[in-house]
Amino acid sequence: MSSFEVSGLNKVRRSDRGSYEREAIYAMLDEALVAHVGFVQDGRPVVMPMVYGRDRDRLYLHGAKAARFAKAMAPGVPVCVTVTLTDGIVIGRSAFHCSMNYRSAVIHGLAQLVTDSEEAESALAAVTDHLVPGRWAESRPMTEKELRSTAVLRVEIEAASMKSRSGAPIDEDEDYALPIWAGVIPLRQEAGLPEADDRVIAGVDIPASVSARRAAR
Amino acid sequence: MSSFEVSGLNKVRRSDRGSYEREAIYAMLDEALVAHVGFVQDGRPVVMPMVYGRDRDRLYLHGAKAARFAKAMAPGVPVCVTVTLTDGIVIGRSAFHCSMNYRSAVIHGLAQLVTDSEEAESALAAVTDHLVPGRWAESRPMTEKELRSTAVLRVEIEAASMKSRSGAPIDEDEDYALPIWAGVIPLRQEAGLPEADDRVIAGVDIPASVSARRAAR
Repeated sequence: MSSFEVSGLNKVRRSDRGSYEREAIYAMLDEALVAHVGFVQDGRPVVMPMVYGRDRDRLYLHGAKAARFAKAMAPGVPVCVTVTLTDGIVIGRSAFHCSMNYRSAVIHGLAQLVTDSEEAESALAAVTDHLVPGRWAESRPMTEKELRSTAVLRVEIEAASMKSRSGAPIDEDEDYALPIWAGVIPLRQEAGLPEADDRVIAGVDIPASVSARRAAR
Repeated sequence: MSSFEVSGLNKVRRSDRGSYEREAIYAMLDEALVAHVGFVQDGRPVVMPMVYGRDRDRLYLHGAKAARFAKAMAPGVPVCVTVTLTDGIVIGRSAFHCSMNYRSAVIHGLAQLVTDSEEAESALAAVTDHLVPGRWAESRPMTEKELRSTAVLRVEIEAASMKSRSGAPIDEDEDYALPIWAGVIPLRQEAGLPEADDRVIAGVDIPASVSARRAAR
């Protein structure tokens, strides 16, 4: 299994919780739905939630060409793309040992505006199929006008790391004698039954892609 | 209801989806569990998931004094604190109108290391009670040593905005005639049954705080 090189950019300080393994990081990127994308604008950090797609060692972001982030990122700026899955609330006997069970991946790279229309279209397919695998092929194809109004940004993954915590709280030895409850509240993102909009024409059923998405996460 | 002043920092470009109302933004901050905190380090953006607490117009973050973010933020640096709740996957008839239903709040401010020990302790209470309301009072009190090893950061909220999307996909008029399913997959974060750790002493039941947290979200 290949690993990302460890550098000042991605070094995890708590090494017991860190990983640099490409496969594990990519699996997390594929599982999560929304990333928090950070960039610097006028010297200040800006963090925005965004959907994304992955194609091998590239992440793709998109938005309206008029959007602030698209203008800010288009010239090729460093971005940090972070995805987090929250698995539980960890409740220790002391507040000091309260925490979260989670998995998070932090990706560093340069955002670049995609100018090649073939790459832009396959990037948008990756973003759509990340939301609902298989949906791109079922959708009405993108028009030229839609493609022209969309900014697609490529982030070549330059450095990446992952952190996670799982399991019970870890309390101080002497605290285990206290009459205080401790444990974990598990958290899970659940998908409900798909709700058709009012104008789906008669006889058109929920496609397999959408039913499958329900089960996935 | 009071609103945050609109400036270059917090202006929402899609005004139909934006809000600057303090009450709505604070309600969202109180509902979400994890924030994505962005800061600039060596000229590059870094985004980290963190738990947090709120006390009126202040957010509090915390971590080990040895942690990278604590060292980076302690001198008083601009941060962007973003929280996002994902409410659904929006599936249009075209990929162009696929989207998410979500609520997100973006907060800008300066992080400042809290040096007053009383403020630090009440900040840690806010963080703990944000995870599980009422838990601070039930926990074994913080020791001097624990307090000394913890970096607490105050973020005075300087600018804030909120964005949200809800409801069905909005397709192009002519696309409603297509035999393509469209609608929403609702998403919800569910809390499972609390799991006691193996060493809770006999007769100690799940406290009301933890049972209540289950229901909340």
